[in-house]
Amino acid sequence: MYKVKVYVTLRKSVLDPHGNAVKKQMQMNGIDGIKDVRIGKYIELTFNKDTENLENKIKEVCENLLVNPVTEDYRYEIEECAAQ
Amino acid sequence: MYKVKVYVTLRKSVLDPHGNAVKKQMQMNGIDGIKDVRIGKYIELTFNKDTENLENKIKEVCENLLVNPVTEDYRYEIEECAAQ
Repeated sequence: MYKVKVYVTLRKSVLDPHGNAVKKQMQMNGIDGIKDVRIGKYIELTFNKDTENLENKIKEVCENLLVNPVTEDYRYEIEECAAQ
Repeated sequence: MYKVKVYVTLRKSVLDPHGNAVKKQMQMNGIDGIKDVRIGKYIELTFNKDTENLENKIKEVCENLLVNPVTEDYRYEIEECAAQ
């Protein structure tokens, strides 16, 4: 089995209203020292161990279904693991 | 500066309708081999380097603002990095 961990982040040039709301609420709660909050997505894809062309499939899923290429970047890690 | 990476995942016992929708669409797009899709959050918190009680602050933010303890788990990593 393959466990693929995909990290989707907003591009630096894109504002993050959700992250800013969390930051403001942290400051209102007296949590000092916070400079920035950015909220993205973390996706785990599990593939069968005999999957062919795994990297191509991951890229297709990311680019067509998970990531908005105008505002977001992504990276991924592939882990091989025993079936559970 | 500290960069804190927080990973929020749905508990295994909780259904993930968004993840299931992505999985079904992958199958409809002819991407075989996929077994499971789980969608969580990935949050980057940036703290000043002189922040005190960093771990307590991280836990407070996670438990009060970022994570629903009934349905979600979280873990985090702290990286020390130079100011940009």
